[in-house]
Amino acid sequence: MSDETAPDAPTDAPSLMTPGRLEAFSDGVLAILITIMVLELKVPHSAELHALRPLVPVFLSYVLSFVYIGIYWNNHHHLLKRTSTVTGGILWANLDLLFWLSLFPFATAWMGENHFATVPVAAYGVVTLCAAIAYYILQSVIVAHEGRDSALAKALGRDWKGKVSPVLYASAIPLAFVNRWIAVALYVLVALIWLVPDRRLERRYAAR
Amino acid sequence: MSDETAPDAPTDAPSLMTPGRLEAFSDGVLAILITIMVLELKVPHSAELHALRPLVPVFLSYVLSFVYIGIYWNNHHHLLKRTSTVTGGILWANLDLLFWLSLFPFATAWMGENHFATVPVAAYGVVTLCAAIAYYILQSVIVAHEGRDSALAKALGRDWKGKVSPVLYASAIPLAFVNRWIAVALYVLVALIWLVPDRRLERRYAAR
Amino acid sequence: MSDETAPDAPTDAPSLMTPGRLEAFSDGVLAILITIMVLELKVPHSAELHALRPLVPVFLSYVLSFVYIGIYWNNHHHLLKRTSTVTGGILWANLDLLFWLSLFPFATAWMGENHFATVPVAAYGVVTLCAAIAYYILQSVIVAHEGRDSALAKALGRDWKGKVSPVLYASAIPLAFVNRWIAVALYVLVALIWLVPDRRLERRYAAR
Amino acid sequence: MSDETAPDAPTDAPSLMTPGRLEAFSDGVLAILITIMVLELKVPHSAELHALRPLVPVFLSYVLSFVYIGIYWNNHHHLLKRTSTVTGGILWANLDLLFWLSLFPFATAWMGENHFATVPVAAYGVVTLCAAIAYYILQSVIVAHEGRDSALAKALGRDWKGKVSPVLYASAIPLAFVNRWIAVALYVLVALIWLVPDRRLERRYAAR
Repeated sequence: MSDETAPDAPTDAPSLMTPGRLEAFSDGVLAILITIMVLELKVPHSAELHALRPLVPVFLSYVLSFVYIGIYWNNHHHLLKRTSTVTGGILWANLDLLFWLSLFPFATAWMGENHFATVPVAAYGVVTLCAAIAYYILQSVIVAHEGRDSALAKALGRDWKGKVSPVLYASAIPLAFVNRWIAVALYVLVALIWLVPDRRLERRYAAR
Repeated sequence: MSDETAPDAPTDAPSLMTPGRLEAFSDGVLAILITIMVLELKVPHSAELHALRPLVPVFLSYVLSFVYIGIYWNNHHHLLKRTSTVTGGILWANLDLLFWLSLFPFATAWMGENHFATVPVAAYGVVTLCAAIAYYILQSVIVAHEGRDSALAKALGRDWKGKVSPVLYASAIPLAFVNRWIAVALYVLVALIWLVPDRRLERRYAAR
Repeated sequence: MSDETAPDAPTDAPSLMTPGRLEAFSDGVLAILITIMVLELKVPHSAELHALRPLVPVFLSYVLSFVYIGIYWNNHHHLLKRTSTVTGGILWANLDLLFWLSLFPFATAWMGENHFATVPVAAYGVVTLCAAIAYYILQSVIVAHEGRDSALAKALGRDWKGKVSPVLYASAIPLAFVNRWIAVALYVLVALIWLVPDRRLERRYAAR
Repeated sequence: MSDETAPDAPTDAPSLMTPGRLEAFSDGVLAILITIMVLELKVPHSAELHALRPLVPVFLSYVLSFVYIGIYWNNHHHLLKRTSTVTGGILWANLDLLFWLSLFPFATAWMGENHFATVPVAAYGVVTLCAAIAYYILQSVIVAHEGRDSALAKALGRDWKGKVSPVLYASAIPLAFVNRWIAVALYVLVALIWLVPDRRLERRYAAR
């Protein structure tokens, strides 16, 4: 569009887009993702209770991904809350994150409908890993622009959760081929790391 | 994300998220839920009027759930309007509510497509009960944070509707196995309790 | 929720909800409706051009409904822009409108997939008529609350379009059984009435 | 609605709608479009890795369209950011753009599921061309209203990208029948033109 300021290109030039606008669009995408995942809970034709049994793994994988999207939504909000300007690079790093998150419904359904079979469980790890890397890139691009002394950089601190999560996802992929339940346990562990009250975990972590 | 303020964790520490933001995200999810429910009205292949007949129970269950989501949207708005700060606990209690509401399309379709058969009717009661409990938890967490003398606590008053609704849902689940239409009647009754002008009902209630 | 102000009930008491909030939720529902209608354009398995031919009537009915939803979105915006307070009655009249609009994807797909067969064409008229009546009710409830001397009442003027549209829809339903193309022509006519620049039409109308 | 100001008609009279409101609605539609495209990635029944192979072209076409919608979202934002008033003409030009963008999921899925067969590849070019023309019309209508000396007109400059893109799309349609991969290459080229940092490209362009 603009030949001079090039707001649509991944440069470091500040864009006309506000963090609030970027967040509203992202929130829209996340709200849709969290909702269409439930469409994979296909309504059974039978009205008997046992007709729900094959849906149990689909339901459990839905719960897991619902929590993940909830965590991303929350973290994303706090990240953008401390972002002052949106550059072209931030904008495209954000779209990259949304892209990987958009694969969650597929990965979730494949894992659930195949009752946590090995390959879909590993594939779920690939998608969560890519999303975690995309989030890390987005965060790094914003920190680089805000500066090392910014409120964001200080709030992030050591960011141990953000560093441990992709490591756990990456470990889960090969471990799924040893025993798929190890991989599933790792996915649940990452969700718990983000869900369980931070301070207590922080103290335990510091104690170690 | 943040090692110190831990806004993503269910603590009592105030989050950076505003009630308005929380509401906008919730509104997005509710708008999608209320709309995708209609996708269960599968378009018949025949162009004859009688092709619509099997859709009548699906349509009726859609109307019921549409009204329910409308009531939740309205109540949720009034709840957050009187909320001053969002803590991690409030945030996750809200996501918990959205999770149970996200099961409405499934429960609605299962009940409708099976022409209000016993088990799906009871299952509908389970989902509505869980959503009502999740709403009660969200409300309690907010009231606990706002304080017993807050505008919210006063506005809620005795909150007889909020207390009666889960009791009616819980009763409907076993009663569905006696006669499924008793359960359906109870679901309609709860919707009417919230729909019918409050003051008149209040007076009748006081008169009793 | 509230025992005293009863904001969730269809009374005349002003609600805590702002017109802007009501509009944002409605916009969300309309944006979803306008988008999920396109899902009825089922992707053909064949890669040949003639595979698109059976989609032509589906596409044409999609265009018609897209324009209708666009008109409703526009009119709804102008209505709420001149609304100062939202009462319980306005809120539920608005949800009633959204309910009938939510049936557009179904009515559109049934008409399109059956190549504008008589009964689906008449059914389309029923849904558009109900939506038009719901809009008229919403408008009347708001005007009644704003007052006959309000900016809204003046801006509406004689509102000939709002009065002619439901008459045309109601005529289309029986006329579909005479010749379905008369009904389709009436639907297109209503869309054109709202699309074509108002002033010129106004003059023609005055000239008559 | 209004007999006098006719905000719903494509006149030059300023509408009551703000650019922000128009953008919020458009953002909603774009967020839904970008997300429902992923639904075409149908979950395979088999849990084996090779079950993903037929999905590769579907995935690649999804990536392409995801980037396109991202570019439109970004450009659209910058366009409306520099728009001061919304006329009836702008409003309908915007809905026209949303209409053509709403066909992206269909065109993307048809191209992907048929493994980039000739006719679907050409059809994809038709949809992207129509969207590009709709964008050009929207931009022209806004510039005509804002004036040739407006900030928007200056920011657009020569707008070489906006002029080259439809030419490339129009070329791709017949070229698909020569060799479909030429057309696909052109689609990728247009995406890169908008993605790659603008300034460097600008210099190269100037150097030529």
